[in-house]
Amino acid sequence: MNAFDTGIAIEPVEPGLMRGRTDPEWANMVGPFGGITAATLLHAVQSQPDCHGQPVALTVNFAAPVADGEFDIALRAARTNRTNQHWIVELTQDGETKTTATALFGLRRETWVSEEAVMPVVPAPEDVAVPGFPPQVRWTRNFEMLFVEGAVPQPESKPDPSSTTTLWMRNTPSRPIDFPALTAMCDLFYPRVYRRLGRVVPAGTISMNIYFLADQHQLDAVGGDFILGTAHANRFSLGYFDQSAEVFGRDGTLLATSQQIVYFKG
Amino acid sequence: MNAFDTGIAIEPVEPGLMRGRTDPEWANMVGPFGGITAATLLHAVQSQPDCHGQPVALTVNFAAPVADGEFDIALRAARTNRTNQHWIVELTQDGETKTTATALFGLRRETWVSEEAVMPVVPAPEDVAVPGFPPQVRWTRNFEMLFVEGAVPQPESKPDPSSTTTLWMRNTPSRPIDFPALTAMCDLFYPRVYRRLGRVVPAGTISMNIYFLADQHQLDAVGGDFILGTAHANRFSLGYFDQSAEVFGRDGTLLATSQQIVYFKG
Repeated sequence: MNAFDTGIAIEPVEPGLMRGRTDPEWANMVGPFGGITAATLLHAVQSQPDCHGQPVALTVNFAAPVADGEFDIALRAARTNRTNQHWIVELTQDGETKTTATALFGLRRETWVSEEAVMPVVPAPEDVAVPGFPPQVRWTRNFEMLFVEGAVPQPESKPDPSSTTTLWMRNTPSRPIDFPALTAMCDLFYPRVYRRLGRVVPAGTISMNIYFLADQHQLDAVGGDFILGTAHANRFSLGYFDQSAEVFGRDGTLLATSQQIVYFKG
Repeated sequence: MNAFDTGIAIEPVEPGLMRGRTDPEWANMVGPFGGITAATLLHAVQSQPDCHGQPVALTVNFAAPVADGEFDIALRAARTNRTNQHWIVELTQDGETKTTATALFGLRRETWVSEEAVMPVVPAPEDVAVPGFPPQVRWTRNFEMLFVEGAVPQPESKPDPSSTTTLWMRNTPSRPIDFPALTAMCDLFYPRVYRRLGRVVPAGTISMNIYFLADQHQLDAVGGDFILGTAHANRFSLGYFDQSAEVFGRDGTLLATSQQIVYFKG
């Protein structure tokens, strides 16, 4: 089984309740990588027998660190309409809420199409040799990350006026992309404040939002290929900064936009 | 009482349950203006005796139209930490869910500050004479909207390659800005697909997200002055488009970023 599939594995307990467990392969500094938690919650909704349509929007709130061990996911379709469905999701451990989420699923149909977002002009992944994360945290080994701009600061790094990071990314071992994998990859950008200050300071994502602009058919066209992510911050102030990201297929198709609000000290 | 305050008025029913009612002053084509519903939900959280901190993030999912009349708002602090608090909110009518939301509140403290977002260079509101919405829908009379780019399409309008709209906005009658008013103003951008196609097609916001980057002190500095909003779409496809917006104070301070996912036919 691919490490990603093991990471998001869950089983049904009763209607509206799934159970999972943290996987050492996905360990971050404190608790699991937030992207694997977000992916697990989306996967939990997709696993419900009454799930209706494909993912359109996902908001995940990281209320407290997930402890090593089992967790429960309570899910409820708050509203099912003809063309969409609204879910409320809550991850708990020993009765304590650790993560909350809402998810919007919808039927997709052909309409007028226009793409305004423009993929950054970058070298192909085959021509990028910049190494990804140093393997300080285990989960980063589950992705290839080829930085074309704004790699992780090193001890000799200096402050930078730009918060932008752009990288090619894919699962390793390679795996056809699906909505949970796209969700996790929307969270692959290390905290923007590191880039601006040129050093590591305490920081953590508190809430993240994803709009899925591609359907399953467009993800199938990507398959196991690299996708390009680019992220920047708009404002650092009063203990928080925001992050805006776009994720493109190699052909320039905008697959998703994603936003985060991140706590920091500095 | 200011029309905005009347629009977001609610009263407590029991712990964790508030009640409100739709106000004809805020009527949209179907149900109330989504921005007043979002503002009411935020106001409901702020009204809870155990509310901790200032608004940091808000996601509102418009699951079904709110019918004219009373509505209930159930609120629960899913998690309270030392420096932040996570809320789950649900608006119902006759037991049917119409709107869901999550809200993040947090304590604000001085930290490193940097603003990367740049306010568009535009004429001052005093020098803008472009009229706002034609008064087809009642709620638009409760804001001054001075468009500096991308005004509402008129019968003679043509398709446009840009989805960007930029406008000065404030409550009318004038009222000092607070978080609920800022929330409503994040929803003042008419559907981007109108701008691209140069005409009105069926469209409606299904989910909206706001990151509050200013604290109450910075809102107090704005007072009743105009704020500048600018919004654009990244991709129209498969029945949905996204919207990214920034809202600035007149001095260039980024007060909030906001995103939407919008259903459309066309």
